[in-house]
Amino acid sequence: MTIWYGGDYNPEQWPREIWDEDVRLMNRAGVSLATVGVFSWARLEPREGDYDFAWLDEVLDLLHANGVRVDLATATASPPPWLALRYPQTLPVTEHGVRLSVGSRQQYCPSSPVYRQKAAELVRRIVERYADHPALELWHVNNEYGCHVSHCYCEVSAEAFRDWLRAKYGDVEELNRVWGTAFWSQRYDSFTEVSPPRAAPTFRNPTQLLDFDRFSNDELLACYRAEAAIIRDRSAIPVTTNFMGFFKAVDYWAWAREVDVVSDDTYPDPADPDAPAYAAMVRDLMRSLGGGAPWLLMEQAPSAVNWRRQNAAKAPGQMRAWSYQSVARGADGVLFFQWRQSAAGSEKFHSGLVPHAGTDTRLWREVEQLGSELAALSVRTGAEAIAGTRVPSSVAITLDWDSWWAIEQPAAPTDVSYLRILFAWHRALTESGVTVDFVRSDADLSGYSLVVAPAHFTATDAQVANLAAFAQTGTLVVGFGTAVTDENLHVRLGGYLGAPLRSALGVWIEEFAPPAAPDPQNLGTGTPPALALEGAVLGGAGAGGVWAEYLRVEDAETLATFGDGALSGWPAVTRRATPGGAGWYVATLPEPAALQRLAAAVLLDAGIEPPAPVTRGGRVECVRRGGSLFVINHGADEAVLQIDGTDLLTGAPTSGMRLPQHGVAIVRPREV
Amino acid sequence: MTIWYGGDYNPEQWPREIWDEDVRLMNRAGVSLATVGVFSWARLEPREGDYDFAWLDEVLDLLHANGVRVDLATATASPPPWLALRYPQTLPVTEHGVRLSVGSRQQYCPSSPVYRQKAAELVRRIVERYADHPALELWHVNNEYGCHVSHCYCEVSAEAFRDWLRAKYGDVEELNRVWGTAFWSQRYDSFTEVSPPRAAPTFRNPTQLLDFDRFSNDELLACYRAEAAIIRDRSAIPVTTNFMGFFKAVDYWAWAREVDVVSDDTYPDPADPDAPAYAAMVRDLMRSLGGGAPWLLMEQAPSAVNWRRQNAAKAPGQMRAWSYQSVARGADGVLFFQWRQSAAGSEKFHSGLVPHAGTDTRLWREVEQLGSELAALSVRTGAEAIAGTRVPSSVAITLDWDSWWAIEQPAAPTDVSYLRILFAWHRALTESGVTVDFVRSDADLSGYSLVVAPAHFTATDAQVANLAAFAQTGTLVVGFGTAVTDENLHVRLGGYLGAPLRSALGVWIEEFAPPAAPDPQNLGTGTPPALALEGAVLGGAGAGGVWAEYLRVEDAETLATFGDGALSGWPAVTRRATPGGAGWYVATLPEPAALQRLAAAVLLDAGIEPPAPVTRGGRVECVRRGGSLFVINHGADEAVLQIDGTDLLTGAPTSGMRLPQHGVAIVRPREV
Amino acid sequence: MTIWYGGDYNPEQWPREIWDEDVRLMNRAGVSLATVGVFSWARLEPREGDYDFAWLDEVLDLLHANGVRVDLATATASPPPWLALRYPQTLPVTEHGVRLSVGSRQQYCPSSPVYRQKAAELVRRIVERYADHPALELWHVNNEYGCHVSHCYCEVSAEAFRDWLRAKYGDVEELNRVWGTAFWSQRYDSFTEVSPPRAAPTFRNPTQLLDFDRFSNDELLACYRAEAAIIRDRSAIPVTTNFMGFFKAVDYWAWAREVDVVSDDTYPDPADPDAPAYAAMVRDLMRSLGGGAPWLLMEQAPSAVNWRRQNAAKAPGQMRAWSYQSVARGADGVLFFQWRQSAAGSEKFHSGLVPHAGTDTRLWREVEQLGSELAALSVRTGAEAIAGTRVPSSVAITLDWDSWWAIEQPAAPTDVSYLRILFAWHRALTESGVTVDFVRSDADLSGYSLVVAPAHFTATDAQVANLAAFAQTGTLVVGFGTAVTDENLHVRLGGYLGAPLRSALGVWIEEFAPPAAPDPQNLGTGTPPALALEGAVLGGAGAGGVWAEYLRVEDAETLATFGDGALSGWPAVTRRATPGGAGWYVATLPEPAALQRLAAAVLLDAGIEPPAPVTRGGRVECVRRGGSLFVINHGADEAVLQIDGTDLLTGAPTSGMRLPQHGVAIVRPREV
Repeated sequence: MTIWYGGDYNPEQWPREIWDEDVRLMNRAGVSLATVGVFSWARLEPREGDYDFAWLDEVLDLLHANGVRVDLATATASPPPWLALRYPQTLPVTEHGVRLSVGSRQQYCPSSPVYRQKAAELVRRIVERYADHPALELWHVNNEYGCHVSHCYCEVSAEAFRDWLRAKYGDVEELNRVWGTAFWSQRYDSFTEVSPPRAAPTFRNPTQLLDFDRFSNDELLACYRAEAAIIRDRSAIPVTTNFMGFFKAVDYWAWAREVDVVSDDTYPDPADPDAPAYAAMVRDLMRSLGGGAPWLLMEQAPSAVNWRRQNAAKAPGQMRAWSYQSVARGADGVLFFQWRQSAAGSEKFHSGLVPHAGTDTRLWREVEQLGSELAALSVRTGAEAIAGTRVPSSVAITLDWDSWWAIEQPAAPTDVSYLRILFAWHRALTESGVTVDFVRSDADLSGYSLVVAPAHFTATDAQVANLAAFAQTGTLVVGFGTAVTDENLHVRLGGYLGAPLRSALGVWIEEFAPPAAPDPQNLGTGTPPALALEGAVLGGAGAGGVWAEYLRVEDAETLATFGDGALSGWPAVTRRATPGGAGWYVATLPEPAALQRLAAAVLLDAGIEPPAPVTRGGRVECVRRGGSLFVINHGADEAVLQIDGTDLLTGAPTSGMRLPQHGVAIVRPREV
Repeated sequence: MTIWYGGDYNPEQWPREIWDEDVRLMNRAGVSLATVGVFSWARLEPREGDYDFAWLDEVLDLLHANGVRVDLATATASPPPWLALRYPQTLPVTEHGVRLSVGSRQQYCPSSPVYRQKAAELVRRIVERYADHPALELWHVNNEYGCHVSHCYCEVSAEAFRDWLRAKYGDVEELNRVWGTAFWSQRYDSFTEVSPPRAAPTFRNPTQLLDFDRFSNDELLACYRAEAAIIRDRSAIPVTTNFMGFFKAVDYWAWAREVDVVSDDTYPDPADPDAPAYAAMVRDLMRSLGGGAPWLLMEQAPSAVNWRRQNAAKAPGQMRAWSYQSVARGADGVLFFQWRQSAAGSEKFHSGLVPHAGTDTRLWREVEQLGSELAALSVRTGAEAIAGTRVPSSVAITLDWDSWWAIEQPAAPTDVSYLRILFAWHRALTESGVTVDFVRSDADLSGYSLVVAPAHFTATDAQVANLAAFAQTGTLVVGFGTAVTDENLHVRLGGYLGAPLRSALGVWIEEFAPPAAPDPQNLGTGTPPALALEGAVLGGAGAGGVWAEYLRVEDAETLATFGDGALSGWPAVTRRATPGGAGWYVATLPEPAALQRLAAAVLLDAGIEPPAPVTRGGRVECVRRGGSLFVINHGADEAVLQIDGTDLLTGAPTSGMRLPQHGVAIVRPREV
Repeated sequence: MTIWYGGDYNPEQWPREIWDEDVRLMNRAGVSLATVGVFSWARLEPREGDYDFAWLDEVLDLLHANGVRVDLATATASPPPWLALRYPQTLPVTEHGVRLSVGSRQQYCPSSPVYRQKAAELVRRIVERYADHPALELWHVNNEYGCHVSHCYCEVSAEAFRDWLRAKYGDVEELNRVWGTAFWSQRYDSFTEVSPPRAAPTFRNPTQLLDFDRFSNDELLACYRAEAAIIRDRSAIPVTTNFMGFFKAVDYWAWAREVDVVSDDTYPDPADPDAPAYAAMVRDLMRSLGGGAPWLLMEQAPSAVNWRRQNAAKAPGQMRAWSYQSVARGADGVLFFQWRQSAAGSEKFHSGLVPHAGTDTRLWREVEQLGSELAALSVRTGAEAIAGTRVPSSVAITLDWDSWWAIEQPAAPTDVSYLRILFAWHRALTESGVTVDFVRSDADLSGYSLVVAPAHFTATDAQVANLAAFAQTGTLVVGFGTAVTDENLHVRLGGYLGAPLRSALGVWIEEFAPPAAPDPQNLGTGTPPALALEGAVLGGAGAGGVWAEYLRVEDAETLATFGDGALSGWPAVTRRATPGGAGWYVATLPEPAALQRLAAAVLLDAGIEPPAPVTRGGRVECVRRGGSLFVINHGADEAVLQIDGTDLLTGAPTSGMRLPQHGVAIVRPREV
């Protein structure tokens, strides 16, 4: 099994003589996989119907001759300028009616039949030509679907949206019922009257917005499916398309079913001390999307990116440490954007494996070191195997794109970030020492001891029932803002939470009372105050934020209460014991220290013994994969290992081993 | 006389069986008035020319059968989607040229002949059908005119604007003179060259902007008038349209003349400690608009709204306290948006009288309590009567929409909020214990002892003369930024302030010198520093902000001076005694404590004895209406009444009575 | 020689009787030059082809009769509304596709053939009529080219841009090479596929952006050239157009070659304590643009402007002090916008020499005083001459519009303000007591002892070589971010800095590592931390910001190092001795105190002895012009002169003379 190493390779940016240096350096660095052709449409089809593959033939042959495998892109992500000139209707339109122009990238309307047809024709030719090329390891469909343009509001999209609605609702009266158009005089008399949610005088219909989010995801997925079908018709090589971590516009649960291997582009911010914790959450998502199967880190930056306001370089060792984080959390490949740093264009200040300054550089030396280490790890087998092994977890957090789309709509009880809520829970659990999966709330949960469902705002009856059923045999933690609506964004009346969850948890919600900052007649906004919390389960006293509720307890124990304001004395955290588990409810978002105390309590309740610390000092991430324990020190302080075993990277004994900042050990524990 | 109780009733959102529960619960809650049909156009005319009134017949009959009176809307506020599809020119256009879409509400160009004609046809049919319905108590024209779309920049509006200008100016040379088009080469050779003030390279012509504000107000008012005329042709029932407090786009002085009863929608922010003071100002405006006649609180929220960034729930008792504030300040009705909280649509998280969770809720219990109390108050008569009585006041603040529009234009001396200036004065006076009216500056002021004219930026000669004349018999306080221009936005030359005010006040303004924060080449802005002030009339020392002036004194006493910077030693507050009164001038906005000292001084000067405090402790609002004194505690601390009388709500003696936060007493003082 | 005094005169705003008062007051104030006709197109050509010059005849005759010379504008800056109505394609379009409207000013597409033709026709008629008018002193072409609309994205501009690109590149493949279109699939198959950089999904092509900046500058310059050619065909009177200080959109190096005298509009913010330092930099630029020749301060404000958010009035004496700053730094004229403050229009709250309040005002008295002083100075001759004399300098800072445009593009290493970097260096040098010129980096530098090249991001080979050559004979200081790319925005590979500079300075840059604030998944941005610096040359310890680099030293002395983080111990400031000079490199922007220490060190290294202080106390600016030393106190504290000489303004001896805030002395030092 191999841990792939390499990255995006764009030789069309460089003269031919550089290509030879490229493969020579790839071999020096241990590069095993190169992604080719991502942005090559304009080069492959310089004018409509006029194809030029000769250069790509040469690239693939050269890579093959030098032992580098190829992840071949379909090149459809960024259409050439001629498409816009000939078919201006392929250009996407914003909700304010601005038709976007050529000159950057990915300027296409996903619903455009012209775009889809031209893309399909290109894919057909690429597949025909390269399906049997011996360098081929993976097909790479398009690129970062939805990046920059995930929703298009043009008239072509409008017509496609109407068709999608016709297919979904059949009768316009059913659409009227589901969208609640009786309010605000929005009733449609026919599907032809419906538009995408373009700029309007005020809040647009929430279910229209949600359906447009779903439609937009479906249209992008249809683009992917069409290309994948052409490939699979002719080739048995696995197919992927690169995801983008927690990307709101695209529901990766639906997409993960369609790819042969999950792959991800993630660019944590080197300047952000929270980045390792956030990135850990992203890696866990990627592993979870594939049902635990190994995945590929398709893109990360060797050092700085160039699209933030300020772009920190990675510190020495940081790239290596974050690469191992991916491997620890299930990746079987560590790839980069891009091989050779561009000399021109919009990403010339995005770092590359071969930097502008060449190979007499800190960066290149780290590239060589990591390549060499991964190659050595790749040949480990048996209990020392890394590649191909799985990452065990008995804890899961539910993740649901409908809820994400819905809870962040305007005209909501308060402004929340779904992602920040998930991150708070993921971090509290991870820092307790456990590894966390993400799950769909309607998945089979029987493999888990603990499931946390935070802010699962929009829930189907089946999801509500599935969660409620889990509480009978495991520990279920439901966070505020859950099951407030059904999948049509109709409120679940009679007290929030669907009936099965009310029974399972023994509580219902009478009214929302989120903390709020004064908004004097729209003349100012601010940060809402924290809410005091009381309860041993939170470590005595703490503070909550983001959300609060009047929580009514029917059959549960109150473990924490709100401590001030109108909510004073009302329950904040409850627990109801069940025959084989427990059902917790948390009516606010405790601040990090309190949430970590709460996480420890629910882990204990679920019978999960967090592992003993393996180091003293440092800010250490520990993840078990296969037979090994990855230990990574993200903190400035040195960490000292306290675990008896051997470091696979150095062969050294790990007891007493010192890990500086960004230091990594892959511990094969001594068999006891 | 009745204090109406109820709210917007939108049965078309609910299945028929809910309607029966609705009227049952209305009776339990003491609901006496329901507003019906506000957003029903699409339901009443589902396709062009095809009307369906059967459901509305049933609603009105059902309400009537259960003793609930009806405020019937003309349903024209939000056109159905078919209007946009058939007549896209009815959709409004922003100043950047974006044509707004269906899918929210109120998407119509006020100048559109098609919209007006379709609306008129609908109103004709509604009036024809329901004019004689026995449930009918009030006609409710359209809804919240100007909300979301107050100015339309489409070509239809442009043509209407040109007609409006032709009617106003007759000759384009007169327009050129008034608009000052000699500057910046803006001279128009014909009216056809004129546009609405659409997006332009830089600051647009100020008088064009002001005329477009006036035109836009007039167009909305023309829409109202057309509907009201259709109603009055056939019906003698009173007509209203619901105002929105201090709403900049609509000059309510002009509108108040056209309604039979003033009604208001106001949503103070429960999270804002300043909300009660701000709401008091709004209630005083509504009373003043009707010349002191009772008005209706047409909409408020039972608890949270859903259109702020963060939406606080009302604390227990807060809804009741704020309802009584309206009654205290002249309302004869306490109504809500909306009866039953929506399960779907853009306002589903806006609270309703019947909440999502049903009647086993804090909210519903408060709804029942208030309904029962208001019913009991309604039957009081004689000296104990509330409904129908008036609120005495001897103090007035001038309010002028032209000044509001003008002083907040860009390219002004500094950025000010007209509303914040008015609020500062209103609050300082109100907290001194008096009740304040708003007046037009050209109204008959003889009923007042004190008139404050703050920032009356744009003043006609008649207004200047009227204010100046008042200073001969009463106490006039003129604030900075007053009478700077005439009604054409032409500066009054030779020292700001029109000549009559210069004589009356004995001062003139040489130059503006507002406090300013550094703006280094547009690379940053900030909050300007406060200006030190000196003067016993301000309590010794204080600070001013927002504005400052080089004030020249010709014939007045200087009561306070600026204390630092280039203005050091220049007058800040002056007073000139007149035969029967006094004329004060205030060249800055003192901070609240200093302004309250100043307010006390001018009240004293006007011979107004602020009433003795009636409580100890609390943050208490006191308002006299009819023969009663309303006492409302908005503060967290308990208040203890010190007034000898009887509480109309409880019958208890009031001396020593304790009022918790949000507590209310309606004191019938003991006759001495 | 005369120091001109006066300003923009817009008599068309006023009735005829005011004109007589105007010239009377001009004479009282000593006004010698009036700029006439800047915004008169609509008045001169009220409808297409119909001209009216009678009023302007009268104005010029009146001024002439009263001894006021005339700077006559071509009146083309702001087209009349009829142009837009008849030729809507002359209106400019934003990058989002919004066509801007009439109603403000300067609403024309610079590439519009219709606009250019109508403008040319107007200029021909004006020149024909007034070329021989005896009042004429100067021609004033258009006004503030590029203000508000510097880039137009309409289809006419697009076609012109394509023509410009055809002329520049000849073959589209050369464009593809230079723009780097191989990346992101941007390859153009023909020039017809190219657009202006309109709104697009994400970052637009950097070289396309830069070429569009160049094109836009060229189009404006072509407008200027066309008008100037018409004038010069017929008239020998000098021609100018008014610049706007450091104005990013227009490359004044190219423009300065085309004007007979440089003139400038600058409006420092009276509320900003940094304004005098910033304004000094602007004055130095104007002198440098003209190669050291006297220039004209064409516009400044007598007191407040009206286009900031908050508009401070100038304090007493501030206008005079800032006027003398211009004269000190080479101006032979002090002019204002505008003569008489408007009563209407968008600039009515912009101060005028004749204020709204008239002549019994602080402002008018200062206007008279300054006019009288300048008249007295104008007649000085010999060693006491001011007008016509030059300002010596041996220090220069390089300034390059390509670098300005490029380094502030998005998708860069970090966000920087080119202007703030230049300002930091200019201020550090100026406060050391020297006067600084600006130079093109490819100019003859032999007249200078010290040249500082900060952030010269985009450098041609010739510029790199010229700078490197200078280091052989003078002291060259190169700042971070220099010569990172060539003129095509192609990175200089193999370590940043072109090869000649690497040799000259003995260093190269391995990687950028700018300080960065956390950007957690785009959910927040912030201010990056300062970087510790160590080194005697900075005064021991200091802090840097904005930028940092991994600097590799090959042949230089390290004078300061970075003190913390990943850069700890890496060089921050280096110096390499050369046969006749030295080459310094500075890899960050030291904070002001440290930068001033560094400036002192490089001045010393260059053999420049900063002059001894001439005052005790105050915040004093000293500049030598001709045989005099201007001393201006900008600080609140009094300054006491310590220089032996005579004040030209008062005739008083200067030793021990006291200068209050805003005080000015023009010292004629005693001959020793």
